Amino acid sequence: MNDPRARKVSQAAMMSTADETEASFYDAMQQADLERMMAVWSDDEEIACVHPGGPRVVGTVAVRAGFEAIFANGPVHVQIHHVRRFESTAFAVHHVTEKVQAVDDKGGMRTAYVMATNVYVRTPVGWRMVAHHASSGMPQELPDITEPRTVLH
Amino acid sequence: MNDPRARKVSQAAMMSTADETEASFYDAMQQADLERMMAVWSDDEEIACVHPGGPRVVGTVAVRAGFEAIFANGPVHVQIHHVRRFESTAFAVHHVTEKVQAVDDKGGMRTAYVMATNVYVRTPVGWRMVAHHASSGMPQELPDITEPRTVLH
Repeated sequence: MNDPRARKVSQAAMMSTADETEASFYDAMQQADLERMMAVWSDDEEIACVHPGGPRVVGTVAVRAGFEAIFANGPVHVQIHHVRRFESTAFAVHHVTEKVQAVDDKGGMRTAYVMATNVYVRTPVGWRMVAHHASSGMPQELPDITEPRTVLH
Repeated sequence: MNDPRARKVSQAAMMSTADETEASFYDAMQQADLERMMAVWSDDEEIACVHPGGPRVVGTVAVRAGFEAIFANGPVHVQIHHVRRFESTAFAVHHVTEKVQAVDDKGGMRTAYVMATNVYVRTPVGWRMVAHHASSGMPQELPDITEPRTVLH
C-alpha cells in the first residue's frame, strides 16, 4: 500500500457507490489530500464547484486550483450528517449538512453549518462527483422542513 | 386552451428537455403560478429545495408549501443567465445565476444575484426537477472561474 499506484487503484475501487465517493470527498477535505480530492471528481470540463460564499468554479483545472488554495491552509475539519438522497442507477443527488470547525481570529474554535448539494454520476470506473454546491455557513443548524409548518391559529 | 386539462397537457408536452423544464420553473416564479411550479417538480418524496438563506425543504408537500408562502407575496422578478450544463440522457445538472429584483423597505428597487444549481431527471412524461439549491443573494455578480487566476509574479 506504500506504492502510490496501489493506493490509487484502491481508492478507485472504493468508489463503487455514490456514498463511497462522498466519503472519499470528505476524507480528502479532512486530510487536505489534493490527489485524492481530484480522484473523486469526474474528468469533465463541465464539473462545477461552489465553495461557501465563493464564485462558481467550472472545469477540472479551476476546480483543482480552488482546492489547492483551500488545502494550502491545511485540513478542513468537516463532518457531514443529515444526508438525503435522490438516487437512480445512473446518478445520485445528495443533500448534506456539513459541520465545519475552524480556529477564529482570537484562537477559539468556531463552528459553522453549511448546506451542500453533491451530484454524482456512475462512470465505467465507478461513481464520480460532477457538482458540489455549498451555501454560506450559518452559526446554527437549520433543521430540514419535511412537512408544512403547523399554523397554530 | 381555457380547459385546465388542455393547459396541463400543453405544459407537460413543453417539458421535453431540461431547458424547457427550467424555463417553466422560472416562468412559474415570474407568474407566482403554484400549479405550474409543482408541475415542474418530480413527484418524489426525495425532491429537495433550498431557497436563498433558508432551510432545506424536502418532499412534494413541503416544497409546495414553501412556494405557496413565497408566491403569497406576489410574482418573483427573476431572470437567469450564465447557464452551465452537465447533461446526460437520464439527468441534467444546470448551474445558473439568478438576477432577482425586489422592492426594498424604502420603495427602491434592489437587485441580488443568486447562484443556483438545478437538477433534472428524465421521466416517462418529460423532464422534471428533483433539486433546486440557491445560495444567498449577493449585491454583485461573481463571475465564474473557469481557469486558474493568473499570478502576476
